[in-house]
Amino acid sequence: MKVAIFGASGYTGFELLRILAQHDGAEVVTATSRQYKGKTVPEVFPALRGFYDKLVFSDPGDVKAIKADLAFSAMPHGASQEVVPELMKGSRVIDLSADFRLRDPGVYKAWYGEHKSVNLLSQAVYGLPELKREEIKGARLVANPGCYPTSAVLALLPLAKKGLLAEGTVIIDSKSGASGAGRSASVETSFVEVASGFKAYKVGCHRHTPEIEQELSAAAGGALGVRFTPHLIPASRGILTTAYAGLREELTSSALSSLYREFYSGERFVRLLPEGSFPDISQVRGSNFCDIGLYADRKRVIVVSAIDNLVKGASGQAVQNMNLMFGFPEGKALLTPPLSV
Amino acid sequence: MKVAIFGASGYTGFELLRILAQHDGAEVVTATSRQYKGKTVPEVFPALRGFYDKLVFSDPGDVKAIKADLAFSAMPHGASQEVVPELMKGSRVIDLSADFRLRDPGVYKAWYGEHKSVNLLSQAVYGLPELKREEIKGARLVANPGCYPTSAVLALLPLAKKGLLAEGTVIIDSKSGASGAGRSASVETSFVEVASGFKAYKVGCHRHTPEIEQELSAAAGGALGVRFTPHLIPASRGILTTAYAGLREELTSSALSSLYREFYSGERFVRLLPEGSFPDISQVRGSNFCDIGLYADRKRVIVVSAIDNLVKGASGQAVQNMNLMFGFPEGKALLTPPLSV
Amino acid sequence: MKVAIFGASGYTGFELLRILAQHDGAEVVTATSRQYKGKTVPEVFPALRGFYDKLVFSDPGDVKAIKADLAFSAMPHGASQEVVPELMKGSRVIDLSADFRLRDPGVYKAWYGEHKSVNLLSQAVYGLPELKREEIKGARLVANPGCYPTSAVLALLPLAKKGLLAEGTVIIDSKSGASGAGRSASVETSFVEVASGFKAYKVGCHRHTPEIEQELSAAAGGALGVRFTPHLIPASRGILTTAYAGLREELTSSALSSLYREFYSGERFVRLLPEGSFPDISQVRGSNFCDIGLYADRKRVIVVSAIDNLVKGASGQAVQNMNLMFGFPEGKALLTPPLSV
Amino acid sequence: MKVAIFGASGYTGFELLRILAQHDGAEVVTATSRQYKGKTVPEVFPALRGFYDKLVFSDPGDVKAIKADLAFSAMPHGASQEVVPELMKGSRVIDLSADFRLRDPGVYKAWYGEHKSVNLLSQAVYGLPELKREEIKGARLVANPGCYPTSAVLALLPLAKKGLLAEGTVIIDSKSGASGAGRSASVETSFVEVASGFKAYKVGCHRHTPEIEQELSAAAGGALGVRFTPHLIPASRGILTTAYAGLREELTSSALSSLYREFYSGERFVRLLPEGSFPDISQVRGSNFCDIGLYADRKRVIVVSAIDNLVKGASGQAVQNMNLMFGFPEGKALLTPPLSV
Repeated sequence: MKVAIFGASGYTGFELLRILAQHDGAEVVTATSRQYKGKTVPEVFPALRGFYDKLVFSDPGDVKAIKADLAFSAMPHGASQEVVPELMKGSRVIDLSADFRLRDPGVYKAWYGEHKSVNLLSQAVYGLPELKREEIKGARLVANPGCYPTSAVLALLPLAKKGLLAEGTVIIDSKSGASGAGRSASVETSFVEVASGFKAYKVGCHRHTPEIEQELSAAAGGALGVRFTPHLIPASRGILTTAYAGLREELTSSALSSLYREFYSGERFVRLLPEGSFPDISQVRGSNFCDIGLYADRKRVIVVSAIDNLVKGASGQAVQNMNLMFGFPEGKALLTPPLSV
Repeated sequence: MKVAIFGASGYTGFELLRILAQHDGAEVVTATSRQYKGKTVPEVFPALRGFYDKLVFSDPGDVKAIKADLAFSAMPHGASQEVVPELMKGSRVIDLSADFRLRDPGVYKAWYGEHKSVNLLSQAVYGLPELKREEIKGARLVANPGCYPTSAVLALLPLAKKGLLAEGTVIIDSKSGASGAGRSASVETSFVEVASGFKAYKVGCHRHTPEIEQELSAAAGGALGVRFTPHLIPASRGILTTAYAGLREELTSSALSSLYREFYSGERFVRLLPEGSFPDISQVRGSNFCDIGLYADRKRVIVVSAIDNLVKGASGQAVQNMNLMFGFPEGKALLTPPLSV
Repeated sequence: MKVAIFGASGYTGFELLRILAQHDGAEVVTATSRQYKGKTVPEVFPALRGFYDKLVFSDPGDVKAIKADLAFSAMPHGASQEVVPELMKGSRVIDLSADFRLRDPGVYKAWYGEHKSVNLLSQAVYGLPELKREEIKGARLVANPGCYPTSAVLALLPLAKKGLLAEGTVIIDSKSGASGAGRSASVETSFVEVASGFKAYKVGCHRHTPEIEQELSAAAGGALGVRFTPHLIPASRGILTTAYAGLREELTSSALSSLYREFYSGERFVRLLPEGSFPDISQVRGSNFCDIGLYADRKRVIVVSAIDNLVKGASGQAVQNMNLMFGFPEGKALLTPPLSV
Repeated sequence: MKVAIFGASGYTGFELLRILAQHDGAEVVTATSRQYKGKTVPEVFPALRGFYDKLVFSDPGDVKAIKADLAFSAMPHGASQEVVPELMKGSRVIDLSADFRLRDPGVYKAWYGEHKSVNLLSQAVYGLPELKREEIKGARLVANPGCYPTSAVLALLPLAKKGLLAEGTVIIDSKSGASGAGRSASVETSFVEVASGFKAYKVGCHRHTPEIEQELSAAAGGALGVRFTPHLIPASRGILTTAYAGLREELTSSALSSLYREFYSGERFVRLLPEGSFPDISQVRGSNFCDIGLYADRKRVIVVSAIDNLVKGASGQAVQNMNLMFGFPEGKALLTPPLSV
């Protein structure tokens, strides 16, 4: 199959290129970049020298000329919704931006602004395989989940599905590596400002809040609000989410553990840690795994999850979705051990 | 005045030496280290070359020979309680370990083991100047607060004192730099294991929990339980605490802000940030400041505090206490701007 | 084929496990660890959960029971020479320690101490495929090169082979990430001591000096001394070597470039950068590549090379050697793009 | 005395503010910033909250209104030479850019471009106190040395002055933290690109080369060329220089050591390490010290020096010069121990 990547010179674009270099069933025929058009991939990403030496970044304006079975859009939200309708004329699409994740146009508008392709919202399938595997297989448009929502939803999904989460008690305290801010120049994300720092940001107002609420509410079968606070880790990759929740009924630690083991049974990319163990972002780095650790104290639980924000939180999950859509083994090109050291 | 430092070759010992090098009213006459006895300070800490070139680490066993107005004990808990009674025969004492922080010997025993100097517990003053300034001035024995408790208690003290915290709602999600683990050899704290990692640890069972509960309960005038989760940041210094609480009554953001400004009015080392701003550990690094940012949403608040765990969370606060005990200006040797870059 | 790994719980052991998890022609049947014997691999390396869940670290004392086509020894020098003769009774061996790299027992003794298996020194093939590919294929014992020597020899090999290096002019200024010090507990390699630091160490006396001199001299066909200074980078992986040399005759930049391109033509793992570009350790991280950049100024050159010390500098090169010895494609399990971000 | 800082919102500007906050003899009355004009210092640098709460960044265009005894120019080269003549009408000036460091306008032109205030070049005193203390005291215009040149010149000055350096043998292999690139937005200096990386840059063509050659040649009393290669360390602060040189005559290690001890005798900010010890940038962080370690092997030496590029390599040295120019003790506000941890 032939693959196009729109917005290929950011970190999620790099990550798609990196992962697909190991996927012998998919060939990247187009990679666009407004900033680097005309340059070869290794000129922009020296790490990929020897893999895409002939592939030249093209102008995204040439979208009509795309001939691909699948197009990934790794463009920013807002920009993506302008390109996706065009892309869908010839290809199935996986969109890595926030543009097609929220079902409700009113919610989109409140958090992101006016949506220009509202009609596509209902067609889009939320691309979390652990939640929507079957729908993804047949989807024309997959809305790849946000990085924070992936970590938060996987952490709480079993409890939400069982109706165990008490409304008004859910707190999502998340910490992300700096690549989550994207590959653009700013003083705020410079090495000197980030190294040796650690901070909370967008307290009470981060745009991933409605996405988390949408998916947990749908799973719970009723409105579930969350308090979500993101933080910046002085590391390049990784999200660790510490989720606190009150339960509707008491659970022992071992009951909680059983519930999760049963729920995620057969899920290759969710790794439940032994009791008393908790995840570390280094142990999933560069991989598509989501590691989860559990703690219960009567009617309260703490669930800690770790993902690589660029892999399970973005491009790895996108390739997982691609594998589902095109009949490849779900883990193809994704079953590499983490580079924990 | 003459000062002795017991257990001077760890990070809090280094930090006492570093800070006191700038304090012209106090002279360090004794620094003990079992491991490095016989070596000069610069042989162990090259950073201090030019400051303590003649000071030789002595054996802590020579405790009876100490002639100092003040002794800092920077030894580990357990070891400290064995030395402190001896030290108190000739000096006033500031203990940086956990040994004299908990009032209730039963609580101490439950979390740390049998206490060998139980009779001193009632004499010890909890050394948080913002809470106990007057008692500290006259104290013979000051129990210097833990690093996490300093950040958590300063974050919530104004609400606790006003009786606004709803029992059962307080969550303390704290993140600490690696120096919090002390200066000892272990694979877990090696560069390779910590760099690019981030993890929760001792979930549900960290020993600072009872200390936080003791101080917040005392301030609130009634039992207040907290859920406390520590995490490890890939940075050397700094603690950021994100505290979540439910309130007994609604507060606007500006009412919350006023409450804190009034409560901390005149406190030189607590810096309240403008509305919408939140602290970063880099902005307090190397300094004795505690920066605080606030967020209110009806009956819920999020308070974020940042300290340098080795300064306001340990040795800086110890010198602040020393200044109070010996009549120096409270900020002497401590009013240096953070090395944020 | 069946593989045994001796000393599998260090970083090079981890790296062998990580790489071989992607190699479908080799099965790890034995992994030894004195410290962790009885534990499963994921209990020690959580990153490998899902890959070696049933593999239990065994005691290296059970060496006689090993049934493997190939044994890797990832033990420290000194320990390795005691085990290797035993291993060679049943398996071909790749030794990652320094024990079989030096041809001359006198040189070994001068730098490391008395050698206990001197008779094996002449059998061992120095495992740098770019230099000894054919001999490696048939070897019973491969001495896997040191990390610094790999980076230094690959940087200067084309000049040495052409007889262009002027004796007495070669300076190897190398910088290594912290994993080069191995996975053992020490204050010197703790996060707090290494982060934000950078230093030279073992100036004038590092044990990799004679290994570099041995290989460059052999290539040059005459004694070539080098001055070698290692430094410690606050990063986990990577070695960057800046090599300075005087030439016997003038070379233009483009002549230098041609010489290298011709010499390394067909070498999949040596990537020569475009003129004016120089390597970055991040661009080879987690990969088996050696990136090289060149600068010439009449009779002087600067050659900069970058490798991942744990991959091309250790376990990746070991697997490359294994592939050669057992008839696999040389790049099998090794052609993954670097995790540069 | 009253001080103005031009270009105060970069890292050297921040550093001047940080250091001068501890200097009770100098008051910063003006701080300019085109980008942040109208904002208070703590709005831009939260670390400085509590120190400069009323100081508002002003527009550099208002230069005529400056009333200060001393003006620091912390503007980029090119911009500085336009402002300095104006500033000199009312103030003595310390320029932290490269604009007044090179004596020869032709050399300036070759490396930086046309100079617009050529007539001032001969008036400017090169502000390295260890070299030009007496001239600095009376200077109207001090050209504060570059960060790399400070580390390189202090490393080799004693040998140069003694005429011991053999021409054509000097190699300066320097490594700098990321703050050396300044505080401006670029992808190249972003956290993700720099963290875990290490690279050489501007190989053979860095602009600090002629500055190093000028000062060493002047000291040696004859032309001395150097090969200078800068590298980027994944740390915020610090420069480590490993200098290699051939000598005109043999020196033992102890003779070398004596030579340096004598030469730097009385220099408070140069710390010579014991034989066999070498510096680490962490041990000078935040301080004005230059640590030096020595190694000799007959007619060859290796000298390793470490400074904080923002302090001894820029703003600390500037304040040291200010102290000399205005009759303060040379170390005023500068004798704080490094924040090595």
